[in-house]
Amino acid sequence: MFITSSNNEHIKEINKLKEKKYRDKTNTFLIEGKHIVLEAYKEGLVKELILEQDELFPLNCPTTYVTKEILKKLSSMESYSKIMAVTEKIKEKPFGEKLLILDDIQDPGNMGTIIRSACAFGIDTIVLSPKTVDLYNPKVIRSTQGMLFHINIIVREIVPFIKELKKDNYKIIGTKVTDGNDVRSSKIYSHYALVIGNEGQGISMEVKDLCSEYLYIRMNEQVESLNVAVATSILLYELYNK
Amino acid sequence: MFITSSNNEHIKEINKLKEKKYRDKTNTFLIEGKHIVLEAYKEGLVKELILEQDELFPLNCPTTYVTKEILKKLSSMESYSKIMAVTEKIKEKPFGEKLLILDDIQDPGNMGTIIRSACAFGIDTIVLSPKTVDLYNPKVIRSTQGMLFHINIIVREIVPFIKELKKDNYKIIGTKVTDGNDVRSSKIYSHYALVIGNEGQGISMEVKDLCSEYLYIRMNEQVESLNVAVATSILLYELYNK
Repeated sequence: MFITSSNNEHIKEINKLKEKKYRDKTNTFLIEGKHIVLEAYKEGLVKELILEQDELFPLNCPTTYVTKEILKKLSSMESYSKIMAVTEKIKEKPFGEKLLILDDIQDPGNMGTIIRSACAFGIDTIVLSPKTVDLYNPKVIRSTQGMLFHINIIVREIVPFIKELKKDNYKIIGTKVTDGNDVRSSKIYSHYALVIGNEGQGISMEVKDLCSEYLYIRMNEQVESLNVAVATSILLYELYNK
Repeated sequence: MFITSSNNEHIKEINKLKEKKYRDKTNTFLIEGKHIVLEAYKEGLVKELILEQDELFPLNCPTTYVTKEILKKLSSMESYSKIMAVTEKIKEKPFGEKLLILDDIQDPGNMGTIIRSACAFGIDTIVLSPKTVDLYNPKVIRSTQGMLFHINIIVREIVPFIKELKKDNYKIIGTKVTDGNDVRSSKIYSHYALVIGNEGQGISMEVKDLCSEYLYIRMNEQVESLNVAVATSILLYELYNK
């Protein structure tokens, strides 16, 4: 199929995937760039490949050829990609022993960067609170650098979920600027969940009360805090390299 | 002074500070938000305070009151700030013993986050290559969370600068995915410069050849790389916590 008009109904449908409600309705999302499309393809999630008319990218799936103008319309970047795809959302899998819980992270760049670091440092499942920024937001996806297909990601109400984890003897680890343990000298746990709070407020009081240990990162006392993706990555790095 | 029209010449001049060439021409830049304006004020850099008409924020400097519409026009954020300021650029100071060299970092968010982490982990001077994203870009400033007033930042041609450092016995530390030393077991140096390359290409061959040690971060081998601000922060964290 070759489409030249951006008013084409099929293109209009695809363009709607920029909005969360259509991603939720169709259970699909839009990705762009060769690297990430290949990652999605390997996972069997590509439903439709969208290519610039002369582009060669022979994958075994339905392919729509379009003009540069249409790709520019569909792209969420200033520089468009010649390769895009409509992709099925990732299926939830059972969670394992090393969890990262994100309690209302709001910035898409932070979220994507955290996913990338979680893959690098051996987390098997990321748990998102329902109010966390949408995993399928184009900027989140771009910041993951394709890593979102390499980790299990589930959405849960955090408080009841943590209560269940505690019954199963998971260590629930929070963060605190004071009164905590230096992550450098923290213990090794076979089952744990590291809980990271939102950029502005940190973790909620209710979640804080459920933690059995609090970690901090030793740094210059004149500095109030690190970027949340940086802080999370350093904690994960330390827990991984024990 | 109370200005109600966004066509006012003075407001037009201030609005031009969104562009690098006007920031360079006037040696000033625009900041927004109470926290960062206070940080700039403490450093004696605020030239003009811009407040929403009813806002109380009594600092001892020239103040212009404006309408909400004008603040929205001047703001680089979707949600505007009631407090903005025209600020002098930071003056370069002599550099010390612990340097971070950024070789063409392009993303403003990464750059701001790195500045924040450098403050947290005891770097005294950040050296920017001339092609690095402009330090006074609004998104860089926002991402530093006010920390850009707490660290010395200088702009230099990297290659000749590193050659000079070597003469003064600074250890020049690069990064490499393979063939390097695990940062966890790296040595302590009294004088060093950690060199971080651009998001896409890493450090240039020429700079690589000038390094006397290469560090890597131990992680899951399936993951190609970390976000550059995260990687830099982990390296600085390790060098600080030796």
